[in-house]
Amino acid sequence: MDSLNLNKHISGQFNAELEHIRTQVMIMGGLVEQQLTDAITAMQNMDGELAQRVINDDQKVNMMEVDIDDHCVRIIAKRQPTASDLRMVMAIIKTISELERIGDVAEKISRTALEKFGHNHQPLLVSLESLGRHAVQMLHDVLDAFTRMDLNAAVQIYREDKKVDKEYEGIIRQLMTYMMEDPRTIPSVLTALFCARAIERIGDRCQNICEIIFYFVKGQDFRHLGGDKLDQLLAGDDLPE
Amino acid sequence: MDSLNLNKHISGQFNAELEHIRTQVMIMGGLVEQQLTDAITAMQNMDGELAQRVINDDQKVNMMEVDIDDHCVRIIAKRQPTASDLRMVMAIIKTISELERIGDVAEKISRTALEKFGHNHQPLLVSLESLGRHAVQMLHDVLDAFTRMDLNAAVQIYREDKKVDKEYEGIIRQLMTYMMEDPRTIPSVLTALFCARAIERIGDRCQNICEIIFYFVKGQDFRHLGGDKLDQLLAGDDLPE
Repeated sequence: MDSLNLNKHISGQFNAELEHIRTQVMIMGGLVEQQLTDAITAMQNMDGELAQRVINDDQKVNMMEVDIDDHCVRIIAKRQPTASDLRMVMAIIKTISELERIGDVAEKISRTALEKFGHNHQPLLVSLESLGRHAVQMLHDVLDAFTRMDLNAAVQIYREDKKVDKEYEGIIRQLMTYMMEDPRTIPSVLTALFCARAIERIGDRCQNICEIIFYFVKGQDFRHLGGDKLDQLLAGDDLPE
Repeated sequence: MDSLNLNKHISGQFNAELEHIRTQVMIMGGLVEQQLTDAITAMQNMDGELAQRVINDDQKVNMMEVDIDDHCVRIIAKRQPTASDLRMVMAIIKTISELERIGDVAEKISRTALEKFGHNHQPLLVSLESLGRHAVQMLHDVLDAFTRMDLNAAVQIYREDKKVDKEYEGIIRQLMTYMMEDPRTIPSVLTALFCARAIERIGDRCQNICEIIFYFVKGQDFRHLGGDKLDQLLAGDDLPE
């Protein structure tokens, strides 16, 4: 970590600015995590008030993305960072975009909970709750890894997504049987299916943030490599640090 | 346009590099458009060979994103662009990310066509074809607008997404009736539903590219504003050019 100059800038002012943005990202991440947790709770408990709060707060998340993004571009223009400083700014720009989209999912789940579900859909929702909590945990962990730019943690979280995918597939199968047994449930099951799909995509977005951490720490783009090659590269000592 | 210095850099070398990247984005955009067109054709005609080619070529799209992204970061580090030059580089970084995800959709549609559909699903596929062509047209238009950084075209394309959404909703309703009439169709209809959803999201991604064009031309972030406020801002003369 030390070699990445996280805290050793020649310009104290630049250091302060970068730290400020990193703090903003953490605040945004915390808000998105809260939004997602609340959305899932609202869905499970049919809590309309909580759902409405998540919907109202989505604009806060959006505006944080715009603010941080703008701040990053101004830092690039003014401070002209290079090497790991520039990678950090790029990593932040990409991470907040993922966070904003996770915030959108929370907002959509809340909207669905508010508009479409009734008490008779409780079994559908219970099946989503565990998947939802899993996604929240992944998000929590990846935000923690991002704060510390912890490569090992990021590798573990990256692999965790397979479990989320498996859980999702199980839910799809289960929901399909409901529809087949009673076609009258089709509209509400479909709504649950789309929610499940959206939650499953959160796992993918957390994987994207892992890849951003790989990029920052290793100075190399690890996207689109696939499992084995990724393992090999992450284990290799011949990469630029 | 002239005021944006698209072609008036003091450094001829920098100018050449920026032009080179812009050309790369156009090549990538052309490839993604072809991938999407082929995916929809493969789906409609049950053309396994074409579907396989789209799947194989997805990695090309992915690698183009990584290359262009890397090139952009190196330009920032080396040339330290500011103002509209920096906005152009940022616009490119964000646009290729959207293009890569549209490429993913083409690959997923092809995979679905190859694995899950049979000739008995022809009616499902026909209903997706028109939506697919609409999405291809939007992508084509937005790439064209991006090349010219044409604000007016971008505004029109941005509004076009409402029509895609409407078409998508019609398809969902139609597909739901199939399932209700004959529950045995549920698995294949679900597959078609997820394809429709993925195609509908392409419209959203084209909207994102429109917002990137707004950002480049107007020097201001227009995301998350909503229809009316967006109209007002885009029409206003009091914005920094």
